[in-house]
Order: sequence, then structure tokens, then C-alpha cells
Amino acid sequence: MAGITLERILALHAAYIRCIDRDELEAWPEFFLDPCLYVVTSAENHRLGFPGGMIYADTRGMLIDRVASLRGANVYEKQTYRHILGLPSVLKNGGGEAETETPFMVARIMHDGQTDIFATGVYLDVVRAAGNDLKFAKRIVVCDSSRIHTLLALPL
Amino acid sequence: MAGITLERILALHAAYIRCIDRDELEAWPEFFLDPCLYVVTSAENHRLGFPGGMIYADTRGMLIDRVASLRGANVYEKQTYRHILGLPSVLKNGGGEAETETPFMVARIMHDGQTDIFATGVYLDVVRAAGNDLKFAKRIVVCDSSRIHTLLALPL
Amino acid sequence: MAGITLERILALHAAYIRCIDRDELEAWPEFFLDPCLYVVTSAENHRLGFPGGMIYADTRGMLIDRVASLRGANVYEKQTYRHILGLPSVLKNGGGEAETETPFMVARIMHDGQTDIFATGVYLDVVRAAGNDLKFAKRIVVCDSSRIHTLLALPL
Repeated sequence: MAGITLERILALHAAYIRCIDRDELEAWPEFFLDPCLYVVTSAENHRLGFPGGMIYADTRGMLIDRVASLRGANVYEKQTYRHILGLPSVLKNGGGEAETETPFMVARIMHDGQTDIFATGVYLDVVRAAGNDLKFAKRIVVCDSSRIHTLLALPL
Repeated sequence: MAGITLERILALHAAYIRCIDRDELEAWPEFFLDPCLYVVTSAENHRLGFPGGMIYADTRGMLIDRVASLRGANVYEKQTYRHILGLPSVLKNGGGEAETETPFMVARIMHDGQTDIFATGVYLDVVRAAGNDLKFAKRIVVCDSSRIHTLLALPL
Repeated sequence: MAGITLERILALHAAYIRCIDRDELEAWPEFFLDPCLYVVTSAENHRLGFPGGMIYADTRGMLIDRVASLRGANVYEKQTYRHILGLPSVLKNGGGEAETETPFMVARIMHDGQTDIFATGVYLDVVRAAGNDLKFAKRIVVCDSSRIHTLLALPL
């Protein structure tokens, strides 16, 4: 099977952050295969080889649960987020699967308009063609900062 | 008529922000068809369906007027701006016209070098092929922050 | 000779920032031809036509020396960086060589997790095909801020 085109990879990334930044979180788990691997961790933990992280999910059901718990917790006046992705590096590509690394920056916009950088890091992804769709088999979100956000209010 | 290639869409976006960040504002209205629709609004107003915004223009002449008034107002020592665009989502594409959504982040660099995030948001665009050119039929700039900048010193 | 595809240009940019942000600086000089031109300067100096800058190198050996001196200087607890590139404008393309302009933003993540914008600016590049590789014949890094960083701790 041939490699996946860059255009399809870019479209997947664009659709993923659009879903999150529009707060359409119920559609977010559908970007993943089932089973899958979704981990949010820090650069330090990742470098040290710690498998866990701030968030760990290996089925789509766990992602759905996570959205439900975020919806339950969001009782306060909420901030919004804006993801900006850099260009992906395609490290491997063939057999209907591609391994890519994509840097990201997320801005957080508070209710009074104050804007700061909420997170930066890199997505370590394995994407796989599933029929006409392209989905994440694996997404390791490596955050540059080790500061733990006690309530990580959105998926990354 | 066929769809517009992603490469042409990316090139249009890149040329647009290059024009603004190089302060070549006199060339900026030429990125639009005439008539057109150019609106800068907030996410909150956009969600509530308010048609207006901080800036509203529906002819190229109004865009030209806007540049003239910015040039007249800029008597103070000026800051510079840097746009960084994320990847566009192509929502519709066909008949020589494409509808896209593209996230943006704008940094503001003050004269003393201090740099902060000036604005984040998303461009809601309709682009149309006009001969060899690609131009904006419609650009709704939805800013994440509702804080009104009393003097919005540049086009977004 | 034909022009260089956008896909190859994007891949070069992605690989370059990946190398730096992964702190694999020893591989960084290999992104350049030898001789080459690598300059880091400010927008103000660039506009005034000053040829020099904060950093100037015109051989790969000078880039290698620079990495060695950065490695020697980095005795303190170090921060990390994250480059996010915008979309490149391809200004000329033909004869196996392309001239491009690409905006960038670099975030700096301090050891305590505090994140701010370290630098913004634009890469003015000439890239050239060398066999299967694509390398920088010239990279002028024009930083928006004129504030001189007395110890510029990483390549841009």
C-alpha cells in the first residue's frame, strides 16, 4: 500500500484542532482508532522513558469518558483556546500508515481577553488509513513544560 | 469547474500576511474581490449572530479608505506585528470557489522589544479564482478575545 | 531544471526546526551548503541595509564552531525552545533553486514551566537542490525585535 499524502495528513491535523477549538468535544474521540493510544505527558517524563503521563487512554471509550468528565467539571466561566500547529515532519510513510511529528502552540484566552501561551510541545503520531478516513492509531502529546495543570481543561 | 488546489490556497494566505507584516498596506485591498465582505468581529458576537463587528467593509473602496485612515492615524512611534497562521481546513471546494477556516495568532512587538500575543482567532474565508488570481470574496476575522482594541492599528 | 516542489520546501523547514528543538545541534550545520550564508539580524538593521548582525557565518565550519561554543557556554540550568513556523511565501523558483520567506515564532519554556515568546521574525532563504537533498544556500534570520540577547542560546 502506498504512503499517505501530505495533503491528507495536513487535513487531519486541521480538522482535529478545529474540532477542539470549536468546543465540539463530543466529536473528538472519532479522530482515533479503537483501540488507540492517547497520552499527554511532559518532555521530561518522555525523555526519561516513563510510559504514563498526565492523561492516558487506550480505547475510544476512555476518550468518551474523558469528554464526559470535562463537561461535568466545566461549571465555571470558561476560557477558550486556540491551537496553532507548525509543519509536520513525516518520519516514516508506507503500508497505509505514517509516523509524524508536529509542533504545536496553544494560546489561552481568558474571559477578560487576556491571552497567554497555555502550552507548547510536539505531537508524536501514528496515523492510519481506515477506508476513506485517516485516523490516529497513536498520539503522544509531549508538552514542553513540566508544570502540571491540575485541571487540564481541554484535550490537546 | 474544478476545485482550488491546497497549494494555491496556502500561497494566498502566505502572500496576504506577508503584505501586512511588511507594512505594504496599500497593496492589501487587492487581495479582495470587489464587491467583497471583510469583517473583523469577536467570537462572542459571531456566536450570537451579530452581523456587524469592529470593522465592516463590503467594497474594495472601503478597504482603501481604511488604509488611508490608518496611515493618517499612525503618528506615534509604531509597533510591528507578526502573523503566524495554522493549517487551513477546507470545508467546501468546487466551482472555482473554496470555503476555508484558518486559525491565526498575531504577535505584537513593541519598540523596546517586548513581545506579546496581540490577537488569536480564525479566518472564515470564501476564496474565488479570478483568472490566474485567487482572491477573497469574503473574509470574516473572528477574534477569540472580546476586548475591543479602541484603535486596531492594522488589518488582520 | 524544474522548480522545487512546495512539499520538499515544507519538509526542509520541518526537519530544520525539529533538529533544533530536539537539541540535536551537532546535526544543524548539515542543513547548509558550504560555503553558505547564515545571518541573524534585526528588522531595523536589515531595513537600514547593515550587512552584519548578531550572528554571521559563511562557511559550515563557522556553524560547527558556533555549536561548539554554545555547548561550552551552556553550564546553567537550561530552558527549552519551541519553533512554530507559518506558511512560506515562494518568491522565485527555478533552476534547482528557490527563494522563500517564512515567518516564525519561538516560545521559550523556563525550567519552572513559565512560557513566553522568545522571538518572532521571518526567514529569508535561498534553498538549493544538491542531489537528493535540499539545503540552505542562504538563510537570513530577521528578528522583529531589536533587543539584543546578550547570550543567544540557540540557533534560530
